[in-house]
Amino acid sequence: MPGDDPPSSDRRYTAALLIIGNEILSGRTKDANLPFLAETLNGWGIELVEARVVPDIEAEIVAAVNALRARVDYLFTTGGIGPTHDDITAASVARAFDVPLERHGEAVRRLQAHYGDPALLTEARLRMANVPQGGTLIDNPVSAAPGFQIGNVFVMAGVPKIMQAMLLGLEGRLTGGRPLLSRTVGAALPESQLAEDLARLQDRFPDIAIGSYPGFAGGRPSLSIVLRGRDQAPLDRAAEAVAEAMRRLGAEPVFFG
Amino acid sequence: MPGDDPPSSDRRYTAALLIIGNEILSGRTKDANLPFLAETLNGWGIELVEARVVPDIEAEIVAAVNALRARVDYLFTTGGIGPTHDDITAASVARAFDVPLERHGEAVRRLQAHYGDPALLTEARLRMANVPQGGTLIDNPVSAAPGFQIGNVFVMAGVPKIMQAMLLGLEGRLTGGRPLLSRTVGAALPESQLAEDLARLQDRFPDIAIGSYPGFAGGRPSLSIVLRGRDQAPLDRAAEAVAEAMRRLGAEPVFFG
Repeated sequence: MPGDDPPSSDRRYTAALLIIGNEILSGRTKDANLPFLAETLNGWGIELVEARVVPDIEAEIVAAVNALRARVDYLFTTGGIGPTHDDITAASVARAFDVPLERHGEAVRRLQAHYGDPALLTEARLRMANVPQGGTLIDNPVSAAPGFQIGNVFVMAGVPKIMQAMLLGLEGRLTGGRPLLSRTVGAALPESQLAEDLARLQDRFPDIAIGSYPGFAGGRPSLSIVLRGRDQAPLDRAAEAVAEAMRRLGAEPVFFG
Repeated sequence: MPGDDPPSSDRRYTAALLIIGNEILSGRTKDANLPFLAETLNGWGIELVEARVVPDIEAEIVAAVNALRARVDYLFTTGGIGPTHDDITAASVARAFDVPLERHGEAVRRLQAHYGDPALLTEARLRMANVPQGGTLIDNPVSAAPGFQIGNVFVMAGVPKIMQAMLLGLEGRLTGGRPLLSRTVGAALPESQLAEDLARLQDRFPDIAIGSYPGFAGGRPSLSIVLRGRDQAPLDRAAEAVAEAMRRLGAEPVFFG
């Protein structure tokens, strides 16, 4: 850790993701929000440290919201904020915070502007303007119906296009630390051949997280070593040491990033 | 619920998935195991009711294993059973069960048979034969290194091809109930137009879970209503009632399954 940075820059900022929806747990829909959230947050210096998927059941959502929001700087939820009976996220988050669910005036105005004709603003659509007391809106540039923030909890849509727009709109609203930097070194090696070198290098570079990800490329074993840390110089030294270990095993390392 | 089935067939069997790995939380790797597990288990009459993703940190794995295995009939884990220093699942599960981690004789024999030359069976590779005391092996027809079962916890590889082979090898080893049946009814409608009908139908068919999944098809709003239940007749009646509500709104329902 460098000594000349203000202490605050070494503070680690953490986040969790709560994915709400039976359709994910049934396997019908594949979640696409976790990778986008993880990568976006990483650019803001915030580390995703846990994710959970729970069904559309209020007690499950309340328990998960309360467990996770206490553990991290920021909790993000996706899913369950549409107009139908199975969209119970807003009510569940209100319950988790023990505050009433209220119709939010500005949210109603946005829905009115979006639908135009007042006859189209049905009671079902107005449900999307329900926000826990004290919540502030998260913009939805795609389809108007907003998400909301209450405390350190950010409630977003599950549809990836809308979730992504909502998240990117939060840029600047969240405090982060220094982004985690990463380098990847690949080689055509079975993972187990490099295992002892990696264990030794992990001991030598305790501030660098060294991950080993085996795969297959063209029928041959391939290996990606991912190194992550907050300082470029030790990260580069560790990546070079991994490459050197690969060379000693007769493989040609390839650097990615 | 039919009266002529033995009571045991109405017992609900539940499962959870614990995905272990920094590479999932960083967004680098997209999980592909959850949908496969969910669909396979559903065919066996077992319902996936929660999933969590945790990093390669022993305390986090131990806490999640113990929280989840107490809540469900079967807990499945994926990831972290390879030969490298960051593969700490077996040790963490041993810790969760408060039993020692032991070298499993049959697992060693399988690795010996796989690698042939004893010189290739390095200490790193032998780590893959470490199993918590009392654990039984889960076959790995792809690359020999087995998973294991201890109590109601099933520890599997993270590489999808291996995970899938391990899971399918468990067929017949798990007790399930009657599979959840599902029907899907689609129409070119915005979700909010059908919302009030759906709420009414959900009240009318309390044993059928009715989920509403909006999307876009060819630039127009599209809607899939997924109905799930254990009995065919009420499921069919509910699906027909959803279709009828779509027709009243001027849309042509399409049945999938």
